[in-house]
Amino acid sequence: MTAALDLTADPVDLTAALVDIPSVSGSERPLADAVQQALVTAAPHLRVVRSGDAVLARTELGRDSRVVLAGHLDTVPINDNLPSHRTGSGADELLHGCGSVDMKGGDAVLLHLAAALTEPRHDLTFVFYDCEEVEAERNGLNRIERELPEWLDGDLAIVGEPSDAGIQAGCQGTMRVEVRTNGTRAHTARAWMGSNAVHAAEPVLRALAEYVPRNPVIDGLQFREGLQAVRIEGGVAGNVVPDSCVVTVNHRFAPDTSVAEAEAHLRELFAGYDVEVVDRSGGALPGLSAGPAAELVRASGAEPVAKLGWTDVARFAARGLPAVNFGPGSPTLAHTRQENVPTAQIRHCAEVLRRFLGAS
Amino acid sequence: MTAALDLTADPVDLTAALVDIPSVSGSERPLADAVQQALVTAAPHLRVVRSGDAVLARTELGRDSRVVLAGHLDTVPINDNLPSHRTGSGADELLHGCGSVDMKGGDAVLLHLAAALTEPRHDLTFVFYDCEEVEAERNGLNRIERELPEWLDGDLAIVGEPSDAGIQAGCQGTMRVEVRTNGTRAHTARAWMGSNAVHAAEPVLRALAEYVPRNPVIDGLQFREGLQAVRIEGGVAGNVVPDSCVVTVNHRFAPDTSVAEAEAHLRELFAGYDVEVVDRSGGALPGLSAGPAAELVRASGAEPVAKLGWTDVARFAARGLPAVNFGPGSPTLAHTRQENVPTAQIRHCAEVLRRFLGAS
Repeated sequence: MTAALDLTADPVDLTAALVDIPSVSGSERPLADAVQQALVTAAPHLRVVRSGDAVLARTELGRDSRVVLAGHLDTVPINDNLPSHRTGSGADELLHGCGSVDMKGGDAVLLHLAAALTEPRHDLTFVFYDCEEVEAERNGLNRIERELPEWLDGDLAIVGEPSDAGIQAGCQGTMRVEVRTNGTRAHTARAWMGSNAVHAAEPVLRALAEYVPRNPVIDGLQFREGLQAVRIEGGVAGNVVPDSCVVTVNHRFAPDTSVAEAEAHLRELFAGYDVEVVDRSGGALPGLSAGPAAELVRASGAEPVAKLGWTDVARFAARGLPAVNFGPGSPTLAHTRQENVPTAQIRHCAEVLRRFLGAS
Repeated sequence: MTAALDLTADPVDLTAALVDIPSVSGSERPLADAVQQALVTAAPHLRVVRSGDAVLARTELGRDSRVVLAGHLDTVPINDNLPSHRTGSGADELLHGCGSVDMKGGDAVLLHLAAALTEPRHDLTFVFYDCEEVEAERNGLNRIERELPEWLDGDLAIVGEPSDAGIQAGCQGTMRVEVRTNGTRAHTARAWMGSNAVHAAEPVLRALAEYVPRNPVIDGLQFREGLQAVRIEGGVAGNVVPDSCVVTVNHRFAPDTSVAEAEAHLRELFAGYDVEVVDRSGGALPGLSAGPAAELVRASGAEPVAKLGWTDVARFAARGLPAVNFGPGSPTLAHTRQENVPTAQIRHCAEVLRRFLGAS
């Protein structure tokens, strides 16, 4: 049985408790159960609902504006990096473990505030959701958008993804394509009777290795595109010339490029190959000039920067909300075995949001 | 109960009877029992012994030389191709069914001769063995070599694998290596923090695509080498720069090259990469210039050709016997659902061997 979460605890302790409940995508149920139970217990001022392995909670105070605060509960696969542990001390203390930076530190900040902010300046909606780290179709926000769309509406969305405790605005789009080569099977002892589909993938890998990505500046923020093979698979048996090879390619593109433009670019780059788009999500332009987004930037006391990774910020942007990333830890450590989060950033994020959202 | 086999019947009828006793690798017992019973009944001039699901029989006439005749009893899995049936007639007649070409046609020839040749020119050893169609470790010849090694000795080995009723001599060696590239994982949104192991495999595929195999002529026979990727695998998740990619490569090398030389060649070709040998079997030189092997070539009345695939010929060659493949049917039909054997080739093979082995 999973230990109960204490939302009134220090958010760093709460982060460690969240990390120690494994929640690889598709296996979030124990963590979602614990989050739901903790909200019901420690935040009686919130209305709490459940959607699959997502937990949603909101104030209904009749404020003029509403801020949506969202965090995914799932993590990438555990990589010999559980349970959590700490190193260093004071300002240099780090909390290590699978999900520590992506994004249980952010979840802990939001859960802490969900319990603490009983009289917020804006109405608040908290969304703790499932399956962010896998194909976009499985993302829990799809289900919520379908079944409980009003729970995603508001005047600003803050996604607690790691941003080094700074405001990261906009986000890059992402597209995944499968580039397939074909051949003809034959026994390897008579290989000239066949045609090797793995050998035929060489120009695809060359195009990837030689690709020079764009680095555009948009609304003063620097974006950085990318094009990477994320998987390659081919082979029939140890003595058979393979007749098929598939290279899965992930393209990250700046928000000045549409999904259609990104697809056209990839189809041109891999002209002559069988190209299938298997996943696509548009980017989001920054949008920080007015409203609660501008207030948040002031409360953070730092210059916003461009968000390079695709995050669910773009989903909120597509619904018409300005949306930012704001969470503890470095995104460069996300998905690495050594992922960790500076505990000072967890506390800093909680303070900035308390200043921004707390009673004036 | 399995019907008794009549070794004095026409070898084509005997082939059909063998095909109609299913004997997928690991399930050879009923066929081995029938073969043993038939040899005891119809060939009282032979000493018969049993080893697992293999049956061995030999003359002990004190001849100056001994010829070993070997055939495996097992087949690949049945593929909706039993019982046997015939199509065509006369010189165009085909016998269809699982195992017809690989290699119950050859087994029938050997069993027919085992009963017929009561006064052969050379002493004869017949080896009907199990589990040739599966991993090399399970091959019945391993057990026989361990427990009854003298039953594999002689001056020439004839393996009745399908060779289109021609002499196929020698065989190529085979080696399988894993060529690994390494990289550093990173989120694809920040790919410059990592190093892509799939992109790094491009020079490996280029070396394979550009490889020009040797086609050496050895003892007058044309061999054809090959170097083929048989598998490629890399990838962690759809948004992660992969840190490892493995290309499995199968090298087929002519018998003038040793296993050690083949390995050195691959290590040179893939210098700078992590190369691991996962499977290796040496080839066999033709060795047709003298002795019983030369007599057999003369008896066949046709030019011998090089065997390109690896067969148990190489096991005999490793024991110091010249060894050849000689059996009815086309090796290109082996392991196919539509496998069949021309009945004329069954009779031709029986005649050639009777001419070669019969009393002078």
